[in-house]
Amino acid sequence: MPLPAHVEQGQGEFVIDGQFGIALQGHTEARLDRAKQRFLDTLSRETGIPLWREAQFNQPRFVIQTAGPSAPVQQLGEDESYRLEVSPTKVQLTAANPIGVLRGLQTFLQLVRVTPSGFSVPVVTIDDKPRFPWRGLMIDTSRHFMPLDVIERNLDGMEAVKLNVFHWHITDDQGFRAESKKFPLLQEKGSDGLYYTQDQIRQVIGYARDRGIRVVPEFDMPCHTTSWFVGYPELASGKSPYQVARSWGVHNAAMDPTKESTYQFVDSFIGEMAALFPDAYFHIGGDECNGKEWTANPQIQAFMHAHNIPNNAALQAYFTAKVQKLVAAHGKIMEGWDEVLQPGTPKDVVIQSWRGQASLDEAARQGYRSLLSTGYYIDLNQPAAEHYLVDPLGDTATALTPAQQSLILGGEAAMWSEFVTPENIDSRIWPRTAAIAERLWSPQQARDVDSMYRRLSVVAQKLQYYDLQPRAITNVMLQRMSGDADPTPLKVLAAVVAPPKGYSREGLASYNAFTPLNRLVDAVPPESDTAREFHDIATKIAAGNATPRDWQQAREWLSLWRDNDAKLEPLLVQSDLTVELVPLSHTLTHVAEMGIQALDALQNNDPVSVAKRQQNIAFLKSAEKPQAVLLLMVAPSVELLVQATKTE
Amino acid sequence: MPLPAHVEQGQGEFVIDGQFGIALQGHTEARLDRAKQRFLDTLSRETGIPLWREAQFNQPRFVIQTAGPSAPVQQLGEDESYRLEVSPTKVQLTAANPIGVLRGLQTFLQLVRVTPSGFSVPVVTIDDKPRFPWRGLMIDTSRHFMPLDVIERNLDGMEAVKLNVFHWHITDDQGFRAESKKFPLLQEKGSDGLYYTQDQIRQVIGYARDRGIRVVPEFDMPCHTTSWFVGYPELASGKSPYQVARSWGVHNAAMDPTKESTYQFVDSFIGEMAALFPDAYFHIGGDECNGKEWTANPQIQAFMHAHNIPNNAALQAYFTAKVQKLVAAHGKIMEGWDEVLQPGTPKDVVIQSWRGQASLDEAARQGYRSLLSTGYYIDLNQPAAEHYLVDPLGDTATALTPAQQSLILGGEAAMWSEFVTPENIDSRIWPRTAAIAERLWSPQQARDVDSMYRRLSVVAQKLQYYDLQPRAITNVMLQRMSGDADPTPLKVLAAVVAPPKGYSREGLASYNAFTPLNRLVDAVPPESDTAREFHDIATKIAAGNATPRDWQQAREWLSLWRDNDAKLEPLLVQSDLTVELVPLSHTLTHVAEMGIQALDALQNNDPVSVAKRQQNIAFLKSAEKPQAVLLLMVAPSVELLVQATKTE
Repeated sequence: MPLPAHVEQGQGEFVIDGQFGIALQGHTEARLDRAKQRFLDTLSRETGIPLWREAQFNQPRFVIQTAGPSAPVQQLGEDESYRLEVSPTKVQLTAANPIGVLRGLQTFLQLVRVTPSGFSVPVVTIDDKPRFPWRGLMIDTSRHFMPLDVIERNLDGMEAVKLNVFHWHITDDQGFRAESKKFPLLQEKGSDGLYYTQDQIRQVIGYARDRGIRVVPEFDMPCHTTSWFVGYPELASGKSPYQVARSWGVHNAAMDPTKESTYQFVDSFIGEMAALFPDAYFHIGGDECNGKEWTANPQIQAFMHAHNIPNNAALQAYFTAKVQKLVAAHGKIMEGWDEVLQPGTPKDVVIQSWRGQASLDEAARQGYRSLLSTGYYIDLNQPAAEHYLVDPLGDTATALTPAQQSLILGGEAAMWSEFVTPENIDSRIWPRTAAIAERLWSPQQARDVDSMYRRLSVVAQKLQYYDLQPRAITNVMLQRMSGDADPTPLKVLAAVVAPPKGYSREGLASYNAFTPLNRLVDAVPPESDTAREFHDIATKIAAGNATPRDWQQAREWLSLWRDNDAKLEPLLVQSDLTVELVPLSHTLTHVAEMGIQALDALQNNDPVSVAKRQQNIAFLKSAEKPQAVLLLMVAPSVELLVQATKTE
Repeated sequence: MPLPAHVEQGQGEFVIDGQFGIALQGHTEARLDRAKQRFLDTLSRETGIPLWREAQFNQPRFVIQTAGPSAPVQQLGEDESYRLEVSPTKVQLTAANPIGVLRGLQTFLQLVRVTPSGFSVPVVTIDDKPRFPWRGLMIDTSRHFMPLDVIERNLDGMEAVKLNVFHWHITDDQGFRAESKKFPLLQEKGSDGLYYTQDQIRQVIGYARDRGIRVVPEFDMPCHTTSWFVGYPELASGKSPYQVARSWGVHNAAMDPTKESTYQFVDSFIGEMAALFPDAYFHIGGDECNGKEWTANPQIQAFMHAHNIPNNAALQAYFTAKVQKLVAAHGKIMEGWDEVLQPGTPKDVVIQSWRGQASLDEAARQGYRSLLSTGYYIDLNQPAAEHYLVDPLGDTATALTPAQQSLILGGEAAMWSEFVTPENIDSRIWPRTAAIAERLWSPQQARDVDSMYRRLSVVAQKLQYYDLQPRAITNVMLQRMSGDADPTPLKVLAAVVAPPKGYSREGLASYNAFTPLNRLVDAVPPESDTAREFHDIATKIAAGNATPRDWQQAREWLSLWRDNDAKLEPLLVQSDLTVELVPLSHTLTHVAEMGIQALDALQNNDPVSVAKRQQNIAFLKSAEKPQAVLLLMVAPSVELLVQATKTE
């Protein structure tokens, strides 16, 4: 995962016995040596076989042939193709440049599985290349600061699934996280001391380059800039003093687009950052300006009047146009969110769509290159399948001309960090982002959701060897919140609940930057695997095509859930963090009881009274509403079962 | 854990609400600031409450009072005492120096638990100090190299349980792991490239000092030195060339004690290392010289004859005496294993006993200071309780005079690394080492094994917040060996087996430095918690004083085990790493069947035929023997049940 472009399967397997030896042929560079070492380390973790002596074998059975170098700074659209040929005795990996080698090595690691012969890779020939040249992951390190190790292990995960752009959302209202030497009050006043030094940023860029990943920084402006103004209030349109924002949502703070000094500052700042970040693209954000500070500021209003700027959107366009020139003057191509697309925006600006496919299409129609992020917002707790089926060239984009379609560069998963901490962020990003990575790399026709989930489960397991433990953190958090070393009944509940989708969580409680994210809603994965599997079974039972095994599994689960509350409740009341789950646990038991009754009725073909059925359905509907900021994901499936019963 | 010396419990609790503020009063130094930050980080992980803004509170409710500095290089016997007073509104931690502060902070972290009021610490006054001044953990980084992060997170764990000496067994036959700039062929030829640079060693020493831990290096000589001789064969008593040893056990390689050039080399080398490692003590090993190279070397034999050296032990004593002078000349106090204690050994040499309490006592009787490691060999897979009950002043040491007893400085857990890798070493060291730490810190009368196990379980959970996950690695390894993301029936088997104790594993298969340690025996903890709990229940049932809950638990477990094989076997045969477990899984099912029959007979007071009972016991005896290098830990408990049945 992602599925390769072309696969030819053969007979037999290449067994990993700790004695295969790797030869680097053709073009060489230090990055390839490091990639080889990293490959051996990961393979060693995947297999438990010590491979540190690989280099000593004179008869290499794993040959890597690299035709030439890649660009000194990784370019958009650079060749990432590779050919991987596995025979029972030899592996040959061929690529035009080191990036292709990196991709092929990850494919090999994914093919490793344990068999009766030991760890092995099936005989296969793979010719592979990406469908889209821009395949990104955005991480918001402003709203919650993420230490360097979080960034690095997520870059490892990105490499594993062949993503190639780390979009670093490094400033926002809630924190200015990049060190500026020219304007040190930015981080000193705007970060609570939680920021990346320039040395650390260079370390991340080097780490990413080693993995064939570009780093595109985003300095969001003219809005989402509260944290800038704590140290430099003269940039702002509103009244001083400013404090670092602590609450989520859209803030009013906006740069003053009418003062020349603003552009002098921005010019100097972009110059410093353009030198720090080598990538050709520079993201200036540009989203969510509510214009309130502009409207409230008489000088700005006077300026707009004097310059015939009719409204705030036009004022932002005025700002963006000027900033675009500064970005270009520093040798970079500007990128921005939807809002930067205005009449007169230069054609080389790249538009990142967060508002929807329509704005992506519109950008392409107007001749702009663009990226899709709508549908890839992994903070919204959607199932992997929903993300997976979103295609940058699907939906309305099919109406675009081929030339217009070719302007759509790819997409980016977006990890906004209101509700993630360094502790649980991996469980939000992974494994679902692998499904998005497949959408962006693999042929368009790969759309089999069941196959995707099967492979996603394997990826989730493999990511453990990259220090990403998306599933293990749940247990640690359940132990902590319950004070119990083995909170089995809490695990049972946790397995069938999920955080609410979309932006509804904000409405269910009040949160800010100081709110502990240590409750069940923070501990469980965004998607319940158990609930999905139960839903598949319930659907089959309701449709009358379930197997005896399905019936048995449904009964086992429903009995487990029915009996759980008696064990769980005494545990829940012992902790401030779990007592809120008491009603939810009761509900699960009631839902399970109704499920068992429905199974009995269906199995025996017994009729149910209309009133009783209506009453049950009403209860199930209410059980589908959030409790303790959590959804009981099995309630709709039980409703399916109840709906399938016949009435008297 | 370890239990404090004096505890006075009060009423109420101090609630951790993310707004308490920490004030450092009295003596200050950068190490205390870092300790405060680390304390906040760990507390934040323990609770999930963000604490990065603690420093901003003006009204500190957590006051740390440090009377003065500690020594620039931590000394043996330096004051580690502290007083911790917790009231509902305030915490006061008082200590003579920063080391005491470190100890008190860890006590506070251990007291944190979740309650209906949230995370809190009970109101308490603790006056605490260690029983022994030398409380160590030895890690052998030669037989399996351990990357820096392994060392560092184990230093974190040591701090958590108040150990204060990291004994770094850094060279042995299988690898020379320290960089020498004077003799670079030591690491270049002797380490396969797996060694610690001097910068890394300094980093570890600084990391340890921050945690109140001394670092005592061990350069084992004159034997266990094969890796030295690959680069410098002129040091050896045998014939060149030497290769890095790959097999375990005692090797013949020994330095040539008869050549003056040997001492010149050792002098120069010790000088370099004495400058690198600031601790006052310097361990020269000295164990397990089999003398074969000496006996086989005519020049050495001639030298012994000429100098009236009667045997190899005397030759080693001659060597040790000379090396001791070199060590002393470089300003260090020599430490060595039992064997260095010979007539004429200077009285300041510290003796580390690996042979038994008798040699510890003997050293004390002769006026030497000594340390106990016998009984604390955590590579031998003994239960925590066995280690816990070993007391450096227990057993025959009670016959020593108080003055002699005062020469016994403490002890060290010893993690020899034949059978551990960076992956599973944490699960071998922890949590059992916490039981040894308690023995060495807490009052002698703390000997309640049940209390120890209850608290050990809490420690195991808390260690997760120090990046030590002694229990989580089992799951990762089970997934890998089975190729199954959720190998539940394999977990059932894994929960009731354990590696064989002592040195018997070597006899059950052949191992060397290249052998993958990725089988079930490597994945399971050294001690089965389930088997221990089942044994307690079986004992009560056999004695006729079990509760209905005990009976029910016994039946549940036995039924689980009886039914497990049918689910597990199809999984086992799919992997080369698990197919060897098929007979063991069958055995578990048979043992469980006998257990259920015995329960039935006991419950109904039914007699069993003598022949049947004898047959069952014979089977259970055979089931207690290792299969797939594993012991079925519940078989003896089932035997207890069968023995308790009455015969016809």
